[in-house]
Amino acid sequence: MNIKLQTLKGFRDFLPNEARKRQYVINTLKQVFESYGFEPLETPALEYEEILLGKYGDEGDKLMYRFEDNGKRKVALRYDQTVPLARVVAQYQNQLPMPFKRYQIQNVWRAENTQKGRYREFLQCDIDTVGTKSLYADAEIIACALNSMKKLGFKNLQMKINDRDVFVGVETKYMTIIDKLPKIGKEAVVKELSRYMSQEDALKILNDLLNQAKTSKITEIFSFLKSLGFKEGVDFVFDQTIVRGLDYYTGIIFELIVPEYGEDISVGGGGRYDNLIGIFAGKQIPAVGFAFGFDRLMEAMEENKLFPANLQTTKVLVSVFSPELMEKSLNCSLLLRNNGVPTELYLDENAKLEKQLKYADQKGIPYAIIIGPDEAKNNTVTVKNLKTKTQQTIAKEKLLNMIK
Amino acid sequence: MNIKLQTLKGFRDFLPNEARKRQYVINTLKQVFESYGFEPLETPALEYEEILLGKYGDEGDKLMYRFEDNGKRKVALRYDQTVPLARVVAQYQNQLPMPFKRYQIQNVWRAENTQKGRYREFLQCDIDTVGTKSLYADAEIIACALNSMKKLGFKNLQMKINDRDVFVGVETKYMTIIDKLPKIGKEAVVKELSRYMSQEDALKILNDLLNQAKTSKITEIFSFLKSLGFKEGVDFVFDQTIVRGLDYYTGIIFELIVPEYGEDISVGGGGRYDNLIGIFAGKQIPAVGFAFGFDRLMEAMEENKLFPANLQTTKVLVSVFSPELMEKSLNCSLLLRNNGVPTELYLDENAKLEKQLKYADQKGIPYAIIIGPDEAKNNTVTVKNLKTKTQQTIAKEKLLNMIK
Repeated sequence: MNIKLQTLKGFRDFLPNEARKRQYVINTLKQVFESYGFEPLETPALEYEEILLGKYGDEGDKLMYRFEDNGKRKVALRYDQTVPLARVVAQYQNQLPMPFKRYQIQNVWRAENTQKGRYREFLQCDIDTVGTKSLYADAEIIACALNSMKKLGFKNLQMKINDRDVFVGVETKYMTIIDKLPKIGKEAVVKELSRYMSQEDALKILNDLLNQAKTSKITEIFSFLKSLGFKEGVDFVFDQTIVRGLDYYTGIIFELIVPEYGEDISVGGGGRYDNLIGIFAGKQIPAVGFAFGFDRLMEAMEENKLFPANLQTTKVLVSVFSPELMEKSLNCSLLLRNNGVPTELYLDENAKLEKQLKYADQKGIPYAIIIGPDEAKNNTVTVKNLKTKTQQTIAKEKLLNMIK
Repeated sequence: MNIKLQTLKGFRDFLPNEARKRQYVINTLKQVFESYGFEPLETPALEYEEILLGKYGDEGDKLMYRFEDNGKRKVALRYDQTVPLARVVAQYQNQLPMPFKRYQIQNVWRAENTQKGRYREFLQCDIDTVGTKSLYADAEIIACALNSMKKLGFKNLQMKINDRDVFVGVETKYMTIIDKLPKIGKEAVVKELSRYMSQEDALKILNDLLNQAKTSKITEIFSFLKSLGFKEGVDFVFDQTIVRGLDYYTGIIFELIVPEYGEDISVGGGGRYDNLIGIFAGKQIPAVGFAFGFDRLMEAMEENKLFPANLQTTKVLVSVFSPELMEKSLNCSLLLRNNGVPTELYLDENAKLEKQLKYADQKGIPYAIIIGPDEAKNNTVTVKNLKTKTQQTIAKEKLLNMIK
């Protein structure tokens, strides 16, 4: 067959080692999300186009995967998890207890420019609290995001928090420039602003912003965060230059950074958006949320060496000495598995022992068991530690204790 | 906005209660799959159309979601997990240790006729062992499927096993009729066969088939299954009428039924298929696998009442008596959560207590905590058991012990 073996640009396979790392992060996030009472929600990959179209600006409509299905329906692939949440909240409003606190961990699809290191299929991990204006909800979302990162092992991390009231009176085009501050530095920001005004005025705008005092909302949320055990200046900080999508957010906004990974790279962000969730319901429904950038989070995990040394769940490979001795190996694998030890039986009774041990080693399985004619006769097993390359022959009834 | 609030036909939202049930089944399956050494694999939702096209027969090509993306590439949504597995095995053949035992739990999309109770987006849960012809691999797949069901709580279940050698000499069109035996019964099968032959010949064909002796492969696999602790006639049985897709399978085939759920409804099936995985690699790569029909499995779980009574992970709702006492409630939620108790703090400090308790009850949260002025003064908390409708006021330091 003359077919090129490839995935589409921006789409990825995850082989076992990578898939296990992803599962580890997802499971950890779920556990923390659930410890705060967030509940799981799933929505379909495909929606009627009209549900999604026009909700993400012109760029969103352009990057959306849209097509006509076999029944001539105009459909689109999930572009984010917030618009589907808005649909769900409107569609099931009589059966969803409010506030509705949900987490959602599903793939989204965007036809992004892959040259910028972006993917076209990527996982979003969102938590949102819908139906309350309480600032406690904002504080809780921030706390849950910070604790998720701590649970993953990050020691050094910071939530930069701002209030969009800080920008009142500043033109959006200036904010877009000021947003680049952590990336390009103060001098470059002033230079870019000077295209629209004198350098003096540019400096003044920037300094005025940087000198803005905390708003009353910020003060209140900071007090809640302190009650929750977080330290100002360490875990969270007031940062007047955090912008995010101004047209979308209506209150507190925040961005999470891991200093070792990069001051200018956010691994997640969010804020309060009181006018979006209600678009389908036809009334205002307040909401606040946070989304992890899963791929950046994975990269930051790698850079900070936070993955456990061996995520391979299989503890033992039971090798097969010969077809005649397969039955012995089969029984041994059964004994281990029935006692809760994840065990793989090597499935080719004619393979050389050396090949089988190499297989276990390649897969990161820590122990291999060998049952040859001597072991079979004496009712013993040989246990090989593939890391230390040592082995010992023990009575079969001692095996469970040793492995456990 | 004049948009109809709906999902596409055959596509579903899963609200928290349903999503939790799905997660429960998925997590249980993963745990059993991993206990046998199966490893996770993920492939993209979209593939180049040429990878998938022509692999599922005419019907497959017709039901596949296909479209042109923004870059004029012809793409298709994942239709099953076996063809992507074949691509992966070919594409990464130098880095995948063989045998490759993988599990894959992802959605697939098929534009099925929804009137038949079929969905267009549904989850597949597959285990496959690639790269060995050993009959132990077949036995292991069957054992793993049976043990997955037992772990989910099914007591009564049966794997019907056949060997496609049994059909040698029987025309495919007759097999298609015989396949309906459990659904329509012997009489109706003979009647349908009589369209092509005399009633006498029809009866003979059917009886000949039903009287076929076990093949040597069946005998061998049955002996392995007995070694693995399963009982013939109970856990597994030889059934000469099991057909499945004849053109796809090359050896042992099997189908899993839950008698209480329906003799004629399979909750999963599989078999050996030695000619498919190699299509991209250009050589024969033997394989054997099993796929759970996730939706049928969920239905069978419901019918057999196998879901744990309460999958709600949140153990406690800390209510808020008044804005002034929010701080007390916040601290209490922190104490519980820091000690490993999944805890929700009610996020509207102005809501009536009654509303808050109703919210907890609706969500299936077992305990609610009330901290009013008296409790605050005496350093106590009132714990309400929402199931028994009883409550008691205890010293705050006794709370953890009581909840745990």
